[in-house]
Amino acid sequence: MDDLSPAAQRNHHDAALRDRAKRVIPGGLWGHLNAANLPAGYPQYFARAEGCRLWDVDGREFVDFMCSWGPVVLGHHNPAVEEAVQRQAAQGDCMNGPGPVLVELAETLVDTVPHADWCLFSKNGTDATTTCVTLARAGTGRRKVLVARGSYHGAVPWCSPSIAGVTAEDRAHLITYDYNDTASVEAAAEQAKGDLAAIIVTAFRHDMARALELPDPAFAQALRAICDREGAALILDDVRAGFRLHLGGSWEILGVRPDLAAYSKAIANGHALSAVTGVERFREAATKVFTTGSFWCAAAPMAAAVATLSELKRIDGPAHMRAMGERLRAGFDALAARHGVAIRQSGPAQMPLMLFEGDEEFRFGNAFCSAALEAGAYFHPRHNMFLSCAHGEADIDRALQAADAGFAAVARLG
Amino acid sequence: MDDLSPAAQRNHHDAALRDRAKRVIPGGLWGHLNAANLPAGYPQYFARAEGCRLWDVDGREFVDFMCSWGPVVLGHHNPAVEEAVQRQAAQGDCMNGPGPVLVELAETLVDTVPHADWCLFSKNGTDATTTCVTLARAGTGRRKVLVARGSYHGAVPWCSPSIAGVTAEDRAHLITYDYNDTASVEAAAEQAKGDLAAIIVTAFRHDMARALELPDPAFAQALRAICDREGAALILDDVRAGFRLHLGGSWEILGVRPDLAAYSKAIANGHALSAVTGVERFREAATKVFTTGSFWCAAAPMAAAVATLSELKRIDGPAHMRAMGERLRAGFDALAARHGVAIRQSGPAQMPLMLFEGDEEFRFGNAFCSAALEAGAYFHPRHNMFLSCAHGEADIDRALQAADAGFAAVARLG
Repeated sequence: MDDLSPAAQRNHHDAALRDRAKRVIPGGLWGHLNAANLPAGYPQYFARAEGCRLWDVDGREFVDFMCSWGPVVLGHHNPAVEEAVQRQAAQGDCMNGPGPVLVELAETLVDTVPHADWCLFSKNGTDATTTCVTLARAGTGRRKVLVARGSYHGAVPWCSPSIAGVTAEDRAHLITYDYNDTASVEAAAEQAKGDLAAIIVTAFRHDMARALELPDPAFAQALRAICDREGAALILDDVRAGFRLHLGGSWEILGVRPDLAAYSKAIANGHALSAVTGVERFREAATKVFTTGSFWCAAAPMAAAVATLSELKRIDGPAHMRAMGERLRAGFDALAARHGVAIRQSGPAQMPLMLFEGDEEFRFGNAFCSAALEAGAYFHPRHNMFLSCAHGEADIDRALQAADAGFAAVARLG
Repeated sequence: MDDLSPAAQRNHHDAALRDRAKRVIPGGLWGHLNAANLPAGYPQYFARAEGCRLWDVDGREFVDFMCSWGPVVLGHHNPAVEEAVQRQAAQGDCMNGPGPVLVELAETLVDTVPHADWCLFSKNGTDATTTCVTLARAGTGRRKVLVARGSYHGAVPWCSPSIAGVTAEDRAHLITYDYNDTASVEAAAEQAKGDLAAIIVTAFRHDMARALELPDPAFAQALRAICDREGAALILDDVRAGFRLHLGGSWEILGVRPDLAAYSKAIANGHALSAVTGVERFREAATKVFTTGSFWCAAAPMAAAVATLSELKRIDGPAHMRAMGERLRAGFDALAARHGVAIRQSGPAQMPLMLFEGDEEFRFGNAFCSAALEAGAYFHPRHNMFLSCAHGEADIDRALQAADAGFAAVARLG
């Protein structure tokens, strides 16, 4: 730690932790929260969180627009959720079977998600997507699964964005199509003819580092029709978007219902839980596939989920997050215009992305984010961001002040 | 609910929950905690847990010998663990990166586990075993993995005990051997020649519904030698046994150290966490394999793990659990002799199994367990059980009174 520049001094607790971590954790951190992938100045370690605010270990405060990359949907330390968790934990959490809260949660989910005749619970989004694929195969007796090129469905060999340690066989029965391109799905279905178990699709196209794309309603309807025609399962991977866009599932607004859906992220406001919902046809398959984990019946995260879903309904969380996302988006547009910078905003307002035009190397995006971070807002240059119900107008306006500094930095780069 | 027999009345809250669950959860419950697999009278739903005691939703109290099938190693509501969790949760849990507690935990684990040069964390035991296999492939550039016939390594297609929804390709590069049979490993390694990525092995042979087998030291040494000779990774699946038998890893007592190890279950006393530890050679591979999950950086379960490992060291948890397991085992032997019933006890004392001789259909085991349950002890007829540090002599003696009723029931079946 010989770098005594002002920036380094501001981050010295973070830097010291990174130095220690480097010795005992490969690359300093695994996975998507590795700050090495973020612009200069981003902290790796956090000391505190409350509502839509985060504090790093050096005491810097940020208005947070990542929400732990999705899980935090009501805001950190939501009182209704934390009270429910503590009440359940005081009774029992990880026991020899579930608590009654499992039944309450399952009934709530089946009541909330129109396509759901049943559900089951796990811990990771990847658990849920993997279970959906396995259930589809078990239920249809077929093997082929159509996957959109570039879509993220989890971090195990069948779907990982990295091919390190992956064998060809791990993906032997996947056939790719292009999101929002019905002809490519038809071609893939033709290739799978007679052996098509499922089409899996994300709620919208949220591939890293490119503009987000909402699903074309005709595309969504075509997927449903192809699955119906071929007897395959339509799997909606709603892990990232679920309960932020619509409480009944993100494709309710399109009027297209899946056979199986995977949820996680926002389901329990940051407590570890994921879920699979399914239609009657796949119920029997779900009794045959063996899917389980040591902590999957833990009662406290289920209590968190019941409270989270109840709060989201009570306050119409998706509408609030949409309004706040639209306020942020309008603010970005106004600031960009004022600074003479060309931006492109995409995605649902609750999960927005702002890219700079012609910014293939993310030089502008990184400069924007670094300057905005310095001024108190935690944005992301390449990945969709996340609003929460704890974001109020004053928080958005505070963040837009920080964004002003970001746009100024971009304008200076010119 | 028309069954008004005394047994049904005693379980009527449980029965009502099961009825409701049947509608919204396939088969009533997924996975290993499904009480449908247990003898008559076992509850599915639990209301409360404290130390080594569990209460079902009908108010029945049990001395617990399953400990949630392993996670609960210090006892439910261990004050040191719960205080650490609450302290961390009050600050922040699921944030945009880990808390400093990640570094503390990683350093603790690397200090505690002699083979570990580094570690990373996830949620499920299956996450950890899958990551080990993927890392071994990434690090060696090879594909074949030797797996013991019948060993349990998780619940996803490559390793699930069910084949529903599994394709041949999911297991294309697995070659089986027999536990404790070095010749079978040599033959499997020969079959994999030039393409051997790893041998994966459980800490002891704990296949369901048969006597447990401790690893023959010569077998363990042979696995190490074969991996060294072939340049493959020795993966110890210590998910079930880790931190109950030895804090440094379950094969420390054999003097055999793995290249990669998977931990979960007991690591955080019931809070959702798993870990991979590895040697230097696989550090770079661990930066290339993409393994992540929405809740993997959550700070509260890491605080639980730091506190759990610290408590286990402070009180020498493995020694205490061994002593209590031996007391239970001696009591079983004495009672069996008194009732003129032939039993076979196996496994490490901390994770014991008692089977009845000639009881292929588990008629005796089920009768024993049902009667003991009725008398206040929660045993398992076919799966290894788990002691915790919360079991004291009085608890074991109380459970042996219940076991007396169990042996009497078996003697009556005669």
